[in-house]
Amino acid sequence: MAVELNCLSATRAAQLLARRELSAEQLLRACFARIEQRDGVVHAWAALDKAQALAQARALDQSATRGVLHGLPFGVKDMFATFDLPTSYGSPIYEGHRPPMDAAAVALCREAGALVAGKTVTTEFATYQPGPTRNPHNPAYTPGGSSSGSAAAVGDCMVPFALGTQTAGSIIRPAAYCGVVGFKPSFGRVARAGLKSLAESLDTIGGFARSVDDVALFASVLMRDPGLRELDYDSRPRIGMYRTLQWRHTLPETRKAYEFAAGLLSRAGAQVCELELPPDLCALVQVHADIMSFEAAQSLAFEHVHHAGRLSSSLLALLEAGSQISADEHRVNLERAAQGRAQAEPWFEDYDLLLAPSASGEAPFIEQGTGDPQFCRVWTLFGCPCVHLPFDTGPQGLPVGLQAVGRPGDDRRTLAIARWVLNVLRPEGDA
Amino acid sequence: MAVELNCLSATRAAQLLARRELSAEQLLRACFARIEQRDGVVHAWAALDKAQALAQARALDQSATRGVLHGLPFGVKDMFATFDLPTSYGSPIYEGHRPPMDAAAVALCREAGALVAGKTVTTEFATYQPGPTRNPHNPAYTPGGSSSGSAAAVGDCMVPFALGTQTAGSIIRPAAYCGVVGFKPSFGRVARAGLKSLAESLDTIGGFARSVDDVALFASVLMRDPGLRELDYDSRPRIGMYRTLQWRHTLPETRKAYEFAAGLLSRAGAQVCELELPPDLCALVQVHADIMSFEAAQSLAFEHVHHAGRLSSSLLALLEAGSQISADEHRVNLERAAQGRAQAEPWFEDYDLLLAPSASGEAPFIEQGTGDPQFCRVWTLFGCPCVHLPFDTGPQGLPVGLQAVGRPGDDRRTLAIARWVLNVLRPEGDA
Repeated sequence: MAVELNCLSATRAAQLLARRELSAEQLLRACFARIEQRDGVVHAWAALDKAQALAQARALDQSATRGVLHGLPFGVKDMFATFDLPTSYGSPIYEGHRPPMDAAAVALCREAGALVAGKTVTTEFATYQPGPTRNPHNPAYTPGGSSSGSAAAVGDCMVPFALGTQTAGSIIRPAAYCGVVGFKPSFGRVARAGLKSLAESLDTIGGFARSVDDVALFASVLMRDPGLRELDYDSRPRIGMYRTLQWRHTLPETRKAYEFAAGLLSRAGAQVCELELPPDLCALVQVHADIMSFEAAQSLAFEHVHHAGRLSSSLLALLEAGSQISADEHRVNLERAAQGRAQAEPWFEDYDLLLAPSASGEAPFIEQGTGDPQFCRVWTLFGCPCVHLPFDTGPQGLPVGLQAVGRPGDDRRTLAIARWVLNVLRPEGDA
Repeated sequence: MAVELNCLSATRAAQLLARRELSAEQLLRACFARIEQRDGVVHAWAALDKAQALAQARALDQSATRGVLHGLPFGVKDMFATFDLPTSYGSPIYEGHRPPMDAAAVALCREAGALVAGKTVTTEFATYQPGPTRNPHNPAYTPGGSSSGSAAAVGDCMVPFALGTQTAGSIIRPAAYCGVVGFKPSFGRVARAGLKSLAESLDTIGGFARSVDDVALFASVLMRDPGLRELDYDSRPRIGMYRTLQWRHTLPETRKAYEFAAGLLSRAGAQVCELELPPDLCALVQVHADIMSFEAAQSLAFEHVHHAGRLSSSLLALLEAGSQISADEHRVNLERAAQGRAQAEPWFEDYDLLLAPSASGEAPFIEQGTGDPQFCRVWTLFGCPCVHLPFDTGPQGLPVGLQAVGRPGDDRRTLAIARWVLNVLRPEGDA
């Protein structure tokens, strides 16, 4: 085999597993060997139980094929409940907590035959206080947050895919920093039972893999949509390049990637246009932040009242900010979000896909925190499906890419065209 | 005092508690005495820890006033996590389960000074398999479901208010059968963190009390909206009487209550009109049922896979039905719901409030199950605020009433006019 087992794509590994040319135990052992070798530097994992996982792998090897993920190991962000591993939400308050059930997303993956390799590090309650995880490309840099461990584990070839969540930019940003494909589905399409709530109008389940086919494979299980496993697209997509209203915050590597993508996609046959910036969308970044802090102050009311001393100062500040927003202001914010969403609708009549920055540039130094979600807030607010596409590197040798943004509800088409785009921009790898 | 302490309204008790003319311990002891006396018949409670609750009451009596619910005992449907009482979701799978946190709704009530008297019986995972609870007016009859224990406890004067949830008709129907005021807020206005998910597009937190002022009092805390404590209304409301498309299923007592209300409200100065029935809304009852079963099959995936043998046959049937619905069908259903919602918008231009049946009639016999949610499905699907108003009795001496339905987001106005309506229809009691 040309590729190390732990570096196999999920799609390829699933084929080999289905044909029983590869066993779940073999694959899991390769993943654990990589974790053993590298996690002392990367710190992607919050909880591992190797003996238990290996026993589960052997059981899968002895059973009939359960589903399309049969035998594939995956990482689970520690915001999801798991019945057989601790669930701590990135907070000392819940150290060693053992819920008696799996979150629905985990249960659906296991039902399809996937195998939980372990729990991955999340920032504190999926907000801003970092965990111990480092960027797998260079430990001096952040992996991004809040799905830090999931993005780093996939980026470091420790597992073929991992679950994450996005409330502001918690899938797309770490995907960008770790150089993996990150997929945030349309809002409301993946059941959140058993996920620790942060902000209900925004919390969205998705995850990470190393190709578009791979994110689509596990998304097909989460979204119960077999159509996501048929991503053929052979037309000339109309692509709207959108600098966004945060363009002045982009670093040279993002500007270069943006220009590179526009040129190459056009030469590959896409109809590429630059979108005009509607200036009244400007305020929506703040609208998102206010909806998030208002709802977080409610969702985390128990922790705020009973365990304030064990919350980070950044989380306390978020909750205090949320407490200052009135129910009337919140309602106005939700209405403005709906208006913004309606205003963006015509973009998706004119374009099959938007391409926009995922982050300002390469990952910041670890001391600077997990990066700014400003390039993701509006898309999360709109409930758009978003796919981070990694295809370049920056001056520090760290990954750079762009995000593909689609019409809410149009996840199949968004992934299909994103796959086409990544094939153009990164022709050497699997899309 | 003319009224027994356990029969005090929440609003009145809160006043006395705030003035320290009544202690939290006194009130809780009166409630526990009532529970002691009656719960052998009613079976409203799933978990009680009297010593712990009395200790909490004494602590409240010794502390400064925390908020508007200071010292008020309340019941919590056993679908909400509580850190100090077992949480079993009405299922043997979770018998004795002790989560390490409170659900957000519980935490918000406690933060405002309220005191958890105990956990109330829910049907299995808030679906159809009944718990042991009986109708407090006559134990031969059902209290309704799924918030069976909360409605029965309030109806039997065991507590002044109790939390419930509605996914189909689980607040309004038991309120109707138990003769209490039930309030289901607009969708999306109360944080669901720590609530066991059933169907995320529909699950709504609300509850029960014995007057509109009382439900508004605790809703003001859950919705963080002090405006809900100012329900004055002194205009002539435009009331749309709406028989609904299920009218042929109503029993004589509901028809009588409907005619009685129309006449009396008109004489009291309301502008009362009969709404035309838009026949294409007919299918929405099934659209609701399909959305609910599709989403329940995802939310309860863990229980379905790991504990199928401990699920009731009715729940298994619901989950199997949900599994048969494709993601595409589900998306079409969500779109039809949105269209229906848009179609209903003009009703709320023409009317300040709709009045419609809450249930077919009096509570059915206990052997017949918890009743049919058909009169509530469409309002839940539309996310409308709904208030059950009890004002009559039927041929078996059991409670009868109607539900007030308002425009989504317009909870304050809906409650204010519902209060005006109940004052007209039941002039003797507190509204």
